[in-house]
Amino acid sequence: MLLDLIIIGGGPAGITAGIYAARKKLNTLLISKEFGGQMAKKAVAIENYPGFKKISGLKLIQKFEKQLRKQKIDIERDAVVKVEKIDDKFFVATASKIQFESRAVIVTSGADPRPLEVEGEKEFIGKGVSYCTTCDGPIFANKIVAVVGGGNSGFEAALFLSKIASKIYILECGPKAMADETNQKMVQIAKNIEVITSADIKKIQGDKFVNSIIYQQVSIGENKTLKVQGIFVEIGHQPATSFVKDLVDFNEKDEIKIDWQTCQTKTPGLFASGDVTEVKTKQIVVAAGEGAKAAIAAYRYLNDKY
Amino acid sequence: MLLDLIIIGGGPAGITAGIYAARKKLNTLLISKEFGGQMAKKAVAIENYPGFKKISGLKLIQKFEKQLRKQKIDIERDAVVKVEKIDDKFFVATASKIQFESRAVIVTSGADPRPLEVEGEKEFIGKGVSYCTTCDGPIFANKIVAVVGGGNSGFEAALFLSKIASKIYILECGPKAMADETNQKMVQIAKNIEVITSADIKKIQGDKFVNSIIYQQVSIGENKTLKVQGIFVEIGHQPATSFVKDLVDFNEKDEIKIDWQTCQTKTPGLFASGDVTEVKTKQIVVAAGEGAKAAIAAYRYLNDKY
Repeated sequence: MLLDLIIIGGGPAGITAGIYAARKKLNTLLISKEFGGQMAKKAVAIENYPGFKKISGLKLIQKFEKQLRKQKIDIERDAVVKVEKIDDKFFVATASKIQFESRAVIVTSGADPRPLEVEGEKEFIGKGVSYCTTCDGPIFANKIVAVVGGGNSGFEAALFLSKIASKIYILECGPKAMADETNQKMVQIAKNIEVITSADIKKIQGDKFVNSIIYQQVSIGENKTLKVQGIFVEIGHQPATSFVKDLVDFNEKDEIKIDWQTCQTKTPGLFASGDVTEVKTKQIVVAAGEGAKAAIAAYRYLNDKY
Repeated sequence: MLLDLIIIGGGPAGITAGIYAARKKLNTLLISKEFGGQMAKKAVAIENYPGFKKISGLKLIQKFEKQLRKQKIDIERDAVVKVEKIDDKFFVATASKIQFESRAVIVTSGADPRPLEVEGEKEFIGKGVSYCTTCDGPIFANKIVAVVGGGNSGFEAALFLSKIASKIYILECGPKAMADETNQKMVQIAKNIEVITSADIKKIQGDKFVNSIIYQQVSIGENKTLKVQGIFVEIGHQPATSFVKDLVDFNEKDEIKIDWQTCQTKTPGLFASGDVTEVKTKQIVVAAGEGAKAAIAAYRYLNDKY
């Protein structure tokens, strides 16, 4: 059966696109291994999604999912491995070797923060280990925290935390932090940020919550322990885009380039929204808004063409 | 006192910007005559804001407002009449002749749908008269409705409604509908849409809900009555922008032009988001997302500069 639209991904962008597409009476299929993306894994309660003073990521995504399932939309729990376009038709192949066909596609497969991949990291997610300073920073008032990563995002995370936490360590694995001059200067001025370079993270420790981080001081080959209550990992993101690589252009971070008004990629009929795209502000409400844009644009594309 | 940031407007874009700015510890003032903008006046329940299966516009905006008031942010109930920039400082003057000063400004003053300004229109808002087909269309299943306005938005509204309502009249005041060729063709093909030109709307009538619309057939000078249960007004928007006109560029619809990633206008430090801007998708969740973008960008602007 030829569908109007296939949405790939079940995070805030994909679910919002699904709600909008179904309400526009598009014959739509949403394919996703799971619902929620990063939201479901969030460390602490969400306080910056308008409408909810404080809600866990899991609860919010359950509300999103319920609202989606109220619509007339098909949902397939599967992973997409390949999207192809032949003439005006998209062919979407999944890991379970099913192939779906549609006239338009919206990619909302998200981006995961790059993990450190050290002992203790997974164990303490939600118990001190966080991948989003904007979301989780405010709860670390007067605590000692570490930010791992000496690029701009690490420095900006530390500067933001400097108004909240009592002390912030920036740990950079290389011999020099790569953040730009402005950020470097501001970190120098801030009285409670300390930069440690050549710090190779070895282990995260704690009891119920994180209480320390162990790194090797590479220059002298010695292990050191810092007492911290929070660890913010800021070493980049990995957008999940390999399955559309022939149909889209990427920026230097491997994020999909889009037209900002319609979220269309370089391939007509192929849209992308949320963290998988070059949109700089990686926030739930932004991803949801971008999902709405893409669905309305897909509706217009289909109306113009068919 | 010199503030970090002044946010003008209390709709979804302004409130979201306020929540984000306060969480970034910016010393922020939000100025708005009222909260909610178009949301508070919405005809029917909102079903497309992710997180709420069905909620009235008023209730949703109250939730937004409560969440904002939980933050450390000042709120001033007033109308802004003028924004000026001298050197690096913004001067924001209000109707009550108070002047506030800040280093950055976000304009989120919204855009109101242009009303028909005929008898009965105001009375039946929320009782059959709507200004948002995407939001309110789905409740008119198997009803007879009129769309006022023969431009693209009127035709697109009618096409969308053609899958929901049993019959749709498009009423255009001019001698010819100005929608583009594609839309005109699709309306011809749709079996349940009838276009009536030279129709000058005179009155909206009803009991508890709308039951008819009266227009003058200009060509013959005769009044006619159509029995309809819903009336969608699609004759454009009026962005509220006069107070910043010297500091921003406008598109042909008088909407503020912005950089899509940061929502910055042509004036450094002056941001705009939501319906007041050229963003095509005028939806609550989109405006909220754009408000988050602007607040984060204002935070970066201030960090880089001060």
